[in-house]
Amino acid sequence: MEIQEIIAQRAQEIEGQIEPFLPKETGYAGKLYEAMNYSVRAGGKRLRPMLLASCHRLLGGNSSHLSVAMAAIEMIHTYSLVHDDLPAMDNDMLRRGKPTTHAVYGEAMAILAGDGLLNHAFTLLGRELISCDDEQMRSMAKVIAILSDKAGIDGMIGGQSVDVESEKTGSVITKEKLDYIYRKKTGALLTAAMLCGGALAQADDEKMKTLSDIGEKIGLAFQIIDDILDVEGDQKLLGKPIGSDEKNEKATYITYEGIEKAKEDADRLTREALDCLDTLCPDEADAQQEAAFLRELFLYLTKRDH
Amino acid sequence: MEIQEIIAQRAQEIEGQIEPFLPKETGYAGKLYEAMNYSVRAGGKRLRPMLLASCHRLLGGNSSHLSVAMAAIEMIHTYSLVHDDLPAMDNDMLRRGKPTTHAVYGEAMAILAGDGLLNHAFTLLGRELISCDDEQMRSMAKVIAILSDKAGIDGMIGGQSVDVESEKTGSVITKEKLDYIYRKKTGALLTAAMLCGGALAQADDEKMKTLSDIGEKIGLAFQIIDDILDVEGDQKLLGKPIGSDEKNEKATYITYEGIEKAKEDADRLTREALDCLDTLCPDEADAQQEAAFLRELFLYLTKRDH
Repeated sequence: MEIQEIIAQRAQEIEGQIEPFLPKETGYAGKLYEAMNYSVRAGGKRLRPMLLASCHRLLGGNSSHLSVAMAAIEMIHTYSLVHDDLPAMDNDMLRRGKPTTHAVYGEAMAILAGDGLLNHAFTLLGRELISCDDEQMRSMAKVIAILSDKAGIDGMIGGQSVDVESEKTGSVITKEKLDYIYRKKTGALLTAAMLCGGALAQADDEKMKTLSDIGEKIGLAFQIIDDILDVEGDQKLLGKPIGSDEKNEKATYITYEGIEKAKEDADRLTREALDCLDTLCPDEADAQQEAAFLRELFLYLTKRDH
Repeated sequence: MEIQEIIAQRAQEIEGQIEPFLPKETGYAGKLYEAMNYSVRAGGKRLRPMLLASCHRLLGGNSSHLSVAMAAIEMIHTYSLVHDDLPAMDNDMLRRGKPTTHAVYGEAMAILAGDGLLNHAFTLLGRELISCDDEQMRSMAKVIAILSDKAGIDGMIGGQSVDVESEKTGSVITKEKLDYIYRKKTGALLTAAMLCGGALAQADDEKMKTLSDIGEKIGLAFQIIDDILDVEGDQKLLGKPIGSDEKNEKATYITYEGIEKAKEDADRLTREALDCLDTLCPDEADAQQEAAFLRELFLYLTKRDH
């Protein structure tokens, strides 16, 4: 099977795993739950729960808390998209060809649905936490600490705030600031996914460090590819116009490094991530199979044409 | 000393306790941190951290995690105000006589500052959680579970969503729906404050149930008083125009029960809460003093003229 097919199949499985954690659309607040569920069900690669589950399996994990952690990280990713799309932010009416949450439910409900998804991620993890025995509790505690940190004000929200501020003020963005945005806005939550998988598999500090390194390299490569696609991509495959960064006078990796160096860097980062992955060298057949999947996934993400 | 003075003094102490948990306003995301801190520092009664600390002391607690829990609940309360004030919600430019967060920092940054405050509450609690020994970990886990639950989609956000939806659609609100909004929008987080204090003091299930009952009764009484003040209050003391509910055709407790019954109910709920408080009957002098403070605080909250 081609990697795209495997990814699509896993994404579908993940949607089945996440579904039971979505709120039932009943009661007075039914409309809120509907807006939350609409946002989560709107699709996407399910990359963060996929990475989480894959790293968990790679490291021989067998945690009963896997699904709830997958649901939580997908809810956090989804809330960030719902709020990003708001009129005061990117003002997008379509995402992946579907009306955005505020386009369907109105701006007020979209703000609350985003708040609800972020909060509910921690409600789900909090409920799971208090049901744990002492040994399990420590790895669930790590999941909460990792996720809240990487999604937070020195992680995803921090990166997003710098991006928004740079765009609004039209200030010239330095290479260092661009690095900050890339590392935080996208990289942090991808890294969190890998680390949460590791934490649930009770990985040791060294392995956690390796997962973190991989996440950062792949996150940055992923962003660089985004910039390259905006210059060289196929509009049809991308589902959005190319050249938008240049039109919006938005500084990207390519502004600073040029397109050839950008391609080299994306390749180099991917290779380095794969080397890191090799050092985790699992013995078991299951884990080896998972390492092979992750390798292909990383290559796919950094060679993708959309 | 008058209760107002004691409350003001405690509020000031609480501000000192919370301050170290606010982010330093440096680095690329400095503007985000500034907007968050502006929102938290804008004042208020600090009622939720006050209740949390008071219930903790009442039940003989001596937790080293008290301050972080106080900071977390105040951040969650603050984010809810920041998002409530947004143009798409209540569109308020002033709160307690000061420009609201979006009035100062713009709408996009206010959305992110709210997200940041909500997320940061869990970052602080998550960091504290992983630093705990096994015994402490269980009470910190309870704090996370309580706070995320009561602030969440079946708590504060749920209540807020029903309130927003009712106002936007202009649909007739039933007495039952109004009860839901009151219990969830304000009552849930007040109850969470009391329960978090109890959890940190390692209160048993019976005491936790009593705290929950008190929180619900006081929360509802507090809301009824708000409605009464909107009819009978002194505009100067309130700092906002009276009669706004009637002008906005907003159904309140008084729409259903009339003003006399509303006053009776607020009195009755307060008396019942005080009776519950008596059943917690602490032996130690410190705790007795704290019970006396809570009693006066509840009477103040439900007899207040602003």
